Amino acid sequence: MDYQAVLESIVEELRPQLGRAGHVASYIPALARVPATQFGIALRTCDGVEAAAGDSATPFSIQSISKVFSLTLAMQVAGERLWARIGREPSGNPFNSLVQLESEKGVPRNPFINAGAIVVADHLVAQCVDAKAEILGLLSDLCAEPIAFDEEVASSEAGSGHRNLALSHFMKSFGILDHDVATVLDVYFHQCAIRMSCVQMARAAGYLCRDGAHPRVGARVLSEQQVRRINALMLTCGTYDAAGEFAFSIGLPCKSGVGGGIIAVVPDRLTLCVWSPALDATGNSLLGRCALERFTARTGLSIF
Amino acid sequence: MDYQAVLESIVEELRPQLGRAGHVASYIPALARVPATQFGIALRTCDGVEAAAGDSATPFSIQSISKVFSLTLAMQVAGERLWARIGREPSGNPFNSLVQLESEKGVPRNPFINAGAIVVADHLVAQCVDAKAEILGLLSDLCAEPIAFDEEVASSEAGSGHRNLALSHFMKSFGILDHDVATVLDVYFHQCAIRMSCVQMARAAGYLCRDGAHPRVGARVLSEQQVRRINALMLTCGTYDAAGEFAFSIGLPCKSGVGGGIIAVVPDRLTLCVWSPALDATGNSLLGRCALERFTARTGLSIF
Amino acid sequence: MDYQAVLESIVEELRPQLGRAGHVASYIPALARVPATQFGIALRTCDGVEAAAGDSATPFSIQSISKVFSLTLAMQVAGERLWARIGREPSGNPFNSLVQLESEKGVPRNPFINAGAIVVADHLVAQCVDAKAEILGLLSDLCAEPIAFDEEVASSEAGSGHRNLALSHFMKSFGILDHDVATVLDVYFHQCAIRMSCVQMARAAGYLCRDGAHPRVGARVLSEQQVRRINALMLTCGTYDAAGEFAFSIGLPCKSGVGGGIIAVVPDRLTLCVWSPALDATGNSLLGRCALERFTARTGLSIF
Amino acid sequence: MDYQAVLESIVEELRPQLGRAGHVASYIPALARVPATQFGIALRTCDGVEAAAGDSATPFSIQSISKVFSLTLAMQVAGERLWARIGREPSGNPFNSLVQLESEKGVPRNPFINAGAIVVADHLVAQCVDAKAEILGLLSDLCAEPIAFDEEVASSEAGSGHRNLALSHFMKSFGILDHDVATVLDVYFHQCAIRMSCVQMARAAGYLCRDGAHPRVGARVLSEQQVRRINALMLTCGTYDAAGEFAFSIGLPCKSGVGGGIIAVVPDRLTLCVWSPALDATGNSLLGRCALERFTARTGLSIF
Repeated sequence: MDYQAVLESIVEELRPQLGRAGHVASYIPALARVPATQFGIALRTCDGVEAAAGDSATPFSIQSISKVFSLTLAMQVAGERLWARIGREPSGNPFNSLVQLESEKGVPRNPFINAGAIVVADHLVAQCVDAKAEILGLLSDLCAEPIAFDEEVASSEAGSGHRNLALSHFMKSFGILDHDVATVLDVYFHQCAIRMSCVQMARAAGYLCRDGAHPRVGARVLSEQQVRRINALMLTCGTYDAAGEFAFSIGLPCKSGVGGGIIAVVPDRLTLCVWSPALDATGNSLLGRCALERFTARTGLSIF
Repeated sequence: MDYQAVLESIVEELRPQLGRAGHVASYIPALARVPATQFGIALRTCDGVEAAAGDSATPFSIQSISKVFSLTLAMQVAGERLWARIGREPSGNPFNSLVQLESEKGVPRNPFINAGAIVVADHLVAQCVDAKAEILGLLSDLCAEPIAFDEEVASSEAGSGHRNLALSHFMKSFGILDHDVATVLDVYFHQCAIRMSCVQMARAAGYLCRDGAHPRVGARVLSEQQVRRINALMLTCGTYDAAGEFAFSIGLPCKSGVGGGIIAVVPDRLTLCVWSPALDATGNSLLGRCALERFTARTGLSIF
Repeated sequence: MDYQAVLESIVEELRPQLGRAGHVASYIPALARVPATQFGIALRTCDGVEAAAGDSATPFSIQSISKVFSLTLAMQVAGERLWARIGREPSGNPFNSLVQLESEKGVPRNPFINAGAIVVADHLVAQCVDAKAEILGLLSDLCAEPIAFDEEVASSEAGSGHRNLALSHFMKSFGILDHDVATVLDVYFHQCAIRMSCVQMARAAGYLCRDGAHPRVGARVLSEQQVRRINALMLTCGTYDAAGEFAFSIGLPCKSGVGGGIIAVVPDRLTLCVWSPALDATGNSLLGRCALERFTARTGLSIF
Repeated sequence: MDYQAVLESIVEELRPQLGRAGHVASYIPALARVPATQFGIALRTCDGVEAAAGDSATPFSIQSISKVFSLTLAMQVAGERLWARIGREPSGNPFNSLVQLESEKGVPRNPFINAGAIVVADHLVAQCVDAKAEILGLLSDLCAEPIAFDEEVASSEAGSGHRNLALSHFMKSFGILDHDVATVLDVYFHQCAIRMSCVQMARAAGYLCRDGAHPRVGARVLSEQQVRRINALMLTCGTYDAAGEFAFSIGLPCKSGVGGGIIAVVPDRLTLCVWSPALDATGNSLLGRCALERFTARTGLSIF
């Protein structure tokens, strides 16, 4: 299939809609000032074929997409232990809700809501000499380019992160977090502040379509079963309270972030990253979602 | 692959666990007296190859599995209109919960929770001359054998259905149901009371792995896109509040019922039905779930 | 104190606001067509002194005020047993909420929310030969005039009562109601449809300020302790989700109804009834509430 | 009335139950080690008559009773402004619940749940040069003895206060708190850590039964209306999720703390303080509650 043509046609079709609808995340200045009129898309197949179009080389704040990689690292270093303090069910509630956390004694429903990702970060603090460095190391190795934090974003997150502080202290009150809230959130706020481009992201996520094999060197990142489980979690919990809608209309495991990026996995075929900063009411990239619907409609790719 | 050998080995392995754990549904006598020590499994591939083992020819009460077929019929007769009054998101709550219904103004989260299936039945009442007969007609045609209601179960459901009456009147108070509660619930209680065997069920569900094509005659039951959407809904919402867990550990679209049956779909490959009456704490067949985990582990089949 | 002058001055002051704000209950036609521009007020002291002003002789639909009298009757016939299936706590939620009922296994928080009053009606069905007749009998005896149901309102309530049907079936599913939902709701819908004037109501409620003694004949209606408990329930739970606000700004036990009536008790002094059909956002009579604030400010009467 | 005899008889009657039931608060060591077998009671009438029995001179940790006095101080210094960010309704939920806070955009239901008292503390930080000193100053002046913080308790509260940190950051995320979480909680944790005896407490609360007049010097602490409002709040919200039960069975405005103290107000008559460390399931002093029931039964004092 001529993926390059498909991606270019999608960019052409969506260009007129750029900046027309949706809202760029505005809770911190560094995100609020990102121009809404950007759109990039990139993919990489299992065999290493790449295609890209639009602003695919522009770095963006990966935000919650980082939860896939912190979970990957935690699976490597903590193994099954991880699941003693995190569930695997969709939440059916806003991603940073405290209600469910209260009724379930502080155990987050899954690793892709904020509370769950904070528990994952707690595991990384426990198992890594330098959790922040290891997350960057994993990503840099996966996409073969140096990856870095945007320190301005990280410190803005920390400054406006009262909801995440509330979640963390709440879990701490249930004994769910082992380490200091400040230490754990420092890791969490930094992972959210990583900057990558669509091309880098499509490469880095490659192991998710290759049964856990490293996207380039062929070494094992995770086992086949572990990768299937991450893909299952992405499908059921990867796009906030729109996961059912994404499964229904797109039919691929996806993980999105409020920076406007979304990664999608076609098992045994390819990984894809799309980015456009304006978000819809569910917090997912509005044009990113349109692009994924067009991509699956045009290629017939779907897990169902 | 020698599916017959796989199913037989699963039956052999699980036989010692029969009747050891779990509880048969006890809310109506006709279900409560079903012996817990039964186990059946059957599959049918896209190409018409069949395999079966254990009590695969014993009819059981299909209960909530019927929601897949009433939804199929509603998609045929009502089309996209259907989604105006039903969502497509996992509920993150018990299957007959009123809480979410209240906060979302009476609109059920998806067609596989009770409230959603009752709205589907309301559509069938609107569009069909005889909704109950058409459901039976659809199933009989799909599996090429006459299928019938268990009238004792239907009337027991009606007699003990205060929770479903509550859900229905609650939705009625929000203007979500068009028809009389009694008329709509008569359809709903009857569809739950259908009796089928694993073999019949694996055949009837065949269109779900054949992109919507009829399992035998090749006519179209639903469009490819409609079937993908049903499979997506089964994966995200098909097994009560264990959908995430099923996706994580089994990785196939499934729909279960409190009668102990579960159907599973491997797109482009096969449909499978397993049945064992004893349920786990989430209301899914305990050994049915074990069997599906073994089946996917052994065959490597998974959508992820 | 010259109560007649106080009531007249309140009527004068509030007259310009009649029909200016608030909304008449519109869920049934017989309530919706009540002119909003009516206002009546009446009181009766422990010693039998009466005062009245405005439309104090016009009958109105007493609606939830009836809950005080059905509770009184249930206390007479069922005694302490009553409290096995009803709580005594404010609900902190809308008066017909199902959420709390779900989390508390079908036991209503108090006898003044709809669910609780339905359980009270269930007790009356159990203990009375003809519950509806006994409620009318109690009221007729208390105010020394024949009191009747408005059958049009009663049958409209039944026709539009899906929320109450939902509550009842929900409680039935928890085993909280002993009798048929239809039988119990027939009592409940009728008690809500009683018509009385402010003057009649101030008389009928007289035992609440007389330590349980009959307002005229001196016989005992309830014990002193029972009356204190009803007054306590009125203060904490009598005005929907505005009970705290009423206690804060008025400081008297009150019970309101969506017909626009409110009764208030000054223990050892007097009972008062005010009526004006337009309701505020909390479902309480807007001018009724203003009138009570003026009354307590002017007379200095308050339990605090 | 011979109050001294009444209090002594209550102490005698309850003595055999000391240490038999209930549990001392154990979330911080300084509270956990308080012997359960203590019981004290004291009252002071409007006219300055005092009575006391049992361990009435033993200081205890006043905990949430402090919320009455911090509210009093906030009413003095902030006036009506206070109510812009705090409601006046009973919560119908556990006292430190986050659920209601979420559904109501961070505005606490009333000033006696933890969240509400933290907002009160935020007002004190805004209006006072040294909020902690002014709280102590108010109490010392009211009871004419120097009152102090238990610094061990204050620092233990801070160390184990993750739930309160969660509440505070959560409100901060809604913009409900003006000052730093740490600064506000320093005030809050200290006010909870005040130590007073029953005798001191009965004296200090005296203005609540004297229409706002200072218990000794006759100066005005609050206006009559302000005091009525505090009494109303105590009645509807003063004893966690047992406020309805307290109103029903005791019939007086009360405020309790997890240290085992409870104050009660008989308007125009007296204030009373009872203390016994073992708590019932609702977090209120088990024997304290029994003592209050006996007191009102014996004296006939009740606001209803």
